[in-house]
Amino acid sequence: MAEKKRLVVVGLGLIGGSLAMALKGFEDYEIVGVDISEPTLRYAAEHGVGDMVTGDAAGVLPGADVVVLALHPRGIVRFLQEHRERFRPGCLVTDVCGVKTAILEGARVLPEGVDFIGCHPMAGTEFSGIEHAFPELFQGSHWILVPRENSTDGHIALLERLAGHIGCRDVYRTTAQEHDAMIAYTSQLMHIIAVSVCDDPMLFACRGFEGSSFRGCTRVAALDVGLWTELFSMNRPALSAALDRLIGHLTAYREALDREDPKALAEKLSVSAARKRKMDLPGPDLLE
Amino acid sequence: MAEKKRLVVVGLGLIGGSLAMALKGFEDYEIVGVDISEPTLRYAAEHGVGDMVTGDAAGVLPGADVVVLALHPRGIVRFLQEHRERFRPGCLVTDVCGVKTAILEGARVLPEGVDFIGCHPMAGTEFSGIEHAFPELFQGSHWILVPRENSTDGHIALLERLAGHIGCRDVYRTTAQEHDAMIAYTSQLMHIIAVSVCDDPMLFACRGFEGSSFRGCTRVAALDVGLWTELFSMNRPALSAALDRLIGHLTAYREALDREDPKALAEKLSVSAARKRKMDLPGPDLLE
Repeated sequence: MAEKKRLVVVGLGLIGGSLAMALKGFEDYEIVGVDISEPTLRYAAEHGVGDMVTGDAAGVLPGADVVVLALHPRGIVRFLQEHRERFRPGCLVTDVCGVKTAILEGARVLPEGVDFIGCHPMAGTEFSGIEHAFPELFQGSHWILVPRENSTDGHIALLERLAGHIGCRDVYRTTAQEHDAMIAYTSQLMHIIAVSVCDDPMLFACRGFEGSSFRGCTRVAALDVGLWTELFSMNRPALSAALDRLIGHLTAYREALDREDPKALAEKLSVSAARKRKMDLPGPDLLE
Repeated sequence: MAEKKRLVVVGLGLIGGSLAMALKGFEDYEIVGVDISEPTLRYAAEHGVGDMVTGDAAGVLPGADVVVLALHPRGIVRFLQEHRERFRPGCLVTDVCGVKTAILEGARVLPEGVDFIGCHPMAGTEFSGIEHAFPELFQGSHWILVPRENSTDGHIALLERLAGHIGCRDVYRTTAQEHDAMIAYTSQLMHIIAVSVCDDPMLFACRGFEGSSFRGCTRVAALDVGLWTELFSMNRPALSAALDRLIGHLTAYREALDREDPKALAEKLSVSAARKRKMDLPGPDLLE
């Protein structure tokens, strides 16, 4: 019997831990979880996260066919720098964080023959850490793929199968620049909205008056501060632009209210509501 | 055997229809649904919405012990005006719409002896019409109660039992002014955010890049334009103030990004995230 291939997940937080759970049984891969935290490794071992876990990244990298870096963005860049000589030729390295331009830039340190493809599963919760990980996290999510120019078709196909195995709805392929511009709008801006709504002085007084629209909008405000500070900082121009556009659209509604012209307000609302209906995002969401 | 009491729900849209479904079996009340639309009445009769349905409001009002007006705000004011002489003395009239100052003002046309208590179940979906009604709509929601000064304890207790019967989590009692200020922030502002996000030119291009935060924030953008135009217009000062506060908090984040100081950004995010964690809204939501 041929030896199993090895897929190493580095970083067993919410995303890495959920991935290591969801990947068990993926084709002929043995799933190895890596973390530097003893409590995390113990939790992972006790809960069967992956097929085995270890604190020794340097030891397992040379035997890895696929390495998934599930660290914070700056941690990914540092890890690539520190371990660049340990990846085996022909190995596929990937990451699952929320910015791509800076990561693909960081991946340039890898030696020739080591492929790097950036990934971003559009999944998450407002919690972090392995104790919140669960294998269904990716069910119904989009999986975004950012290959390099010389990424192999075989590795792209492998990641597509991987996304399918963990339950993703579909796989979109794009460039780092396009990814970062889109994500500034679809994800980072939603987090800025959520924290800004929670900055309102009425927050604590409003208990008992909130409905599902409030819960849906503010859910992600309880964010991982370290992670999101990096994501926002590493994608500042695109995020600032998205934020300026939003403030502009909110101000337009503010002015429409001021005009005290219900017909004009209704026309403006009709346009926005029709855009949303045309967008028609499938649901329901597992996590909301 | 004593004759059953009669609870009449006027307006069988999403809220009224769901209410008439959820109220079946409530104590010793017969639930009568009223609507002016023939297709709505047919749908209601075929799907057992309430115990009976009729298009004849004028005919059933004199025999009603409780009347729930589930119309749009201006429709409620008009209905009260038009039918004010038809309510029986001792009858309880209530409504379930999202503004209260204007409604309680409208209820002043009622003759002495007819009680009016404003209600607002904090439940809804982005859909409207009886075909989207379902009896579980109110499960886990807050029910807000706005009595008048001379509302009877018996009627308040009745509405508390009614809210319990349909599955509401709790009942909050407040004034019309406080209700409208709170709702401007917790509900109306969330709808303005959702439509404003959907006004972004990137909306259609971003398909495949959206995750649950985007779906959660924009879900309600597909709103009932006529209803929300009324709600916004009838609560303009409070909504404008909430919108100004939000634009201020978003601008503060815009400026924090501009300073390119990750430590300061992290501190700002910590404050907002801690506020959200302290708020600790129970979930999960049925509808998201």
